[in-house]
Amino acid sequence: MGKVLVFGHKSPDTDAICSAIAFADLKKQLGEDVEAVRLGDLNGETEYVLNHFGVAVPRLVKTVANEVPAVYLVDHNERAQSADDIEDVEVLSVVDHHRIANFETKAPLFYRAEPVGCTATIINKLYKEAGATLSKTIAGLMLSSIISDTLLFKSPTCTDEDVKAAKELEAISGVDVQTYGLDMLKAGTNIADKSAEELITLDMKPFEMGKYTVEIAQVNVVDTNDALSRQAELEAAIRKEIETKNLDLFVLAVTNILTSDSEALILGKAAAAAESAFKVTLDNHVATLKGVVSRKKQIVPVLTESLAD
Amino acid sequence: MGKVLVFGHKSPDTDAICSAIAFADLKKQLGEDVEAVRLGDLNGETEYVLNHFGVAVPRLVKTVANEVPAVYLVDHNERAQSADDIEDVEVLSVVDHHRIANFETKAPLFYRAEPVGCTATIINKLYKEAGATLSKTIAGLMLSSIISDTLLFKSPTCTDEDVKAAKELEAISGVDVQTYGLDMLKAGTNIADKSAEELITLDMKPFEMGKYTVEIAQVNVVDTNDALSRQAELEAAIRKEIETKNLDLFVLAVTNILTSDSEALILGKAAAAAESAFKVTLDNHVATLKGVVSRKKQIVPVLTESLAD
Repeated sequence: MGKVLVFGHKSPDTDAICSAIAFADLKKQLGEDVEAVRLGDLNGETEYVLNHFGVAVPRLVKTVANEVPAVYLVDHNERAQSADDIEDVEVLSVVDHHRIANFETKAPLFYRAEPVGCTATIINKLYKEAGATLSKTIAGLMLSSIISDTLLFKSPTCTDEDVKAAKELEAISGVDVQTYGLDMLKAGTNIADKSAEELITLDMKPFEMGKYTVEIAQVNVVDTNDALSRQAELEAAIRKEIETKNLDLFVLAVTNILTSDSEALILGKAAAAAESAFKVTLDNHVATLKGVVSRKKQIVPVLTESLAD
Repeated sequence: MGKVLVFGHKSPDTDAICSAIAFADLKKQLGEDVEAVRLGDLNGETEYVLNHFGVAVPRLVKTVANEVPAVYLVDHNERAQSADDIEDVEVLSVVDHHRIANFETKAPLFYRAEPVGCTATIINKLYKEAGATLSKTIAGLMLSSIISDTLLFKSPTCTDEDVKAAKELEAISGVDVQTYGLDMLKAGTNIADKSAEELITLDMKPFEMGKYTVEIAQVNVVDTNDALSRQAELEAAIRKEIETKNLDLFVLAVTNILTSDSEALILGKAAAAAESAFKVTLDNHVATLKGVVSRKKQIVPVLTESLAD
């Protein structure tokens, strides 16, 4: 078998980057020629993580078929979230913790999904099952993935398995999870130097829901006013995105990592469906989503349900 | 969590039935209320297996949403191969060894697929990972699944992992794999008492391939003439199936389990695509597929490729 690329989703977050690096490390220990790459720019949080552990930033790619015949996916499966030419390569393996949709293969493959909070939690099991060695650095990256995806264990997506894995990884990495975790999350909340276009795409995921084309972006902050004070600018960027991609709905969730609530800025012709999904009334396109911090568990399923009607 | 049903694909084979029984047993050991059911009639081979180990035939169901809100799938994922109302229930978990296609969930789930020869080989791992106990009977059923899916280890779908699992299961079940295996396979080749309609549906799977609707049936024999001497009768049944379901292609593979070759009877308006896929010329709708015994590995991928053009 020739070289294989492994990568997480577009608009990569810490789990998309670190799980790709960890999975590549695991496969290399098993004798394979694997390179972790990324499909987009790093966010501030992930920059902090790679810098903290002294790990090189994976190479940026847009397409993969020009390099390899086959790939491994981590932290995603949906076509729209993957490499632009994903349909031109064979997907040999997927490790993921999201719903399965708009994903199809010609041949059997290795697919490992579990309804846990973070891909790294599953990769931690794969290391054990393979009898592979977790270095201090890789353990630190995987711990960072779990902290990021579970917002330091406060997200409803966080499971006992994530907490258990984090404890194991904390011991190996020698990192203090609470101190390091808050520093790391805060590094991702500095949005003052980001343009409105960057803010709505940095952690944005596209979805096909029934007949509708939807994009859902999320920004973590320690004060929602940091984002909402720039509402006019954000709306302009979102309207341009809706027009360019002919979207039916765009949701920007501004999530306060300290209070665990989100303010949602919602635009597009399917906005009424979002109102009924979240049982809120938009005021100047904005609504408070109490206790909502997880796109995967608290936003995607209710929107999918509502838009399917 | 309330009761959950677990089942394999329609037109069930030995793996679809026995893996459902084994997975239900595993989940029961973990304290869950799970019942294994089936979506169709048993074939002669599976009847032999259940009878040999004194295991009751799982209950037949057509729909599931009238009974439970959520299900576990084994040995399949494609919508067309599942319960008629599969879209009305939540799929909590899939254990499978086929391609992934026409499968979509709203929420994250447990999905365990590996490119091995048999679902039971993966379930054997799940027992170990859960620290559960494999009884003599369940081990015998799982061994039967592997024998059936790999045609006693002769199919190209058979992997080292299947052979390893079979050895472990042979030791636990106390069955002699060669003697029992051949008896079991032969029990599935007695087609004299089956009508043409039964022969084309007993182990038939529907597929959506590009724009085409395809059904692929397989019959195991020890002499291909047992089936081909009834070609006129089989063709009539297939033409009726094509008309009723508006199919583009129907492939009946008559597989000789002793020589490991198949005779394919191919009808439908996309028959030319099948000829080019298999690089054969049909003679009176029939062509020999040398060394072809596996629908999954040797028929589905080449047809999918050919029909996508």
